[in-house]
Amino acid sequence: MDMHSATTQGSPSPAITVQDTIVKATEILDMAGDELMIAQQAVEECVRDFPLTDAEMRRLQKLDVATQTVASVARVLRNLMSLSPTGVSDSVSLTHVYDGVTLGEVVQVLKGEHAPDVSVAAGEIDLF
Amino acid sequence: MDMHSATTQGSPSPAITVQDTIVKATEILDMAGDELMIAQQAVEECVRDFPLTDAEMRRLQKLDVATQTVASVARVLRNLMSLSPTGVSDSVSLTHVYDGVTLGEVVQVLKGEHAPDVSVAAGEIDLF
Repeated sequence: MDMHSATTQGSPSPAITVQDTIVKATEILDMAGDELMIAQQAVEECVRDFPLTDAEMRRLQKLDVATQTVASVARVLRNLMSLSPTGVSDSVSLTHVYDGVTLGEVVQVLKGEHAPDVSVAAGEIDLF
Repeated sequence: MDMHSATTQGSPSPAITVQDTIVKATEILDMAGDELMIAQQAVEECVRDFPLTDAEMRRLQKLDVATQTVASVARVLRNLMSLSPTGVSDSVSLTHVYDGVTLGEVVQVLKGEHAPDVSVAAGEIDLF
């Protein structure tokens, strides 16, 4: 008996659909979002009594922007799948795709416009 | 002249393909990854001389896990599109989809397995 052939026959190359990949990518982004919320809370507590410079504050604020960006991509992928497209080259409504996304730079990238430097207005808001 | 009709005719509902949405979602995840790297570096500098408890350390390590998770999803979406599927329900090779992804929990979700609690081994590694 050819054991190698038997093993190959018994273990077909695993497959996943495009749709299932996108759904699972969305779930993984949700996991990342949960991790970011925990990290953000920890950072906030750690630096509470720490005198931050404006530059440090701006860099730490990237964490909040990134958390919102990750949540926005999860939203975009969910919106996309909710439109039930059948072909990868199918066109769907752009406004439906970014429905519920509040981050302007995410909408701009989806529209094919240049995304602004998100750090510009950072000094005007709280740390998180 | 009916200006409203003219405006409506001149501004058809914008559309985007499924493929383009996924490509742009990947670009946005790259943006989030850059923001996370900046934030991670800032956190590292801010807490350098700060006595962290094990619990605080574990929570801050979530930032590193999240950064890797976001990069993994970007990689998965790039791998998916590089396989040039045509239908949303097309099956593609799972091993190609997670090619280059080193985070075990991301691979497990894609395989449909239960993802472990990523905080278990946190005490054994450096902050970032």
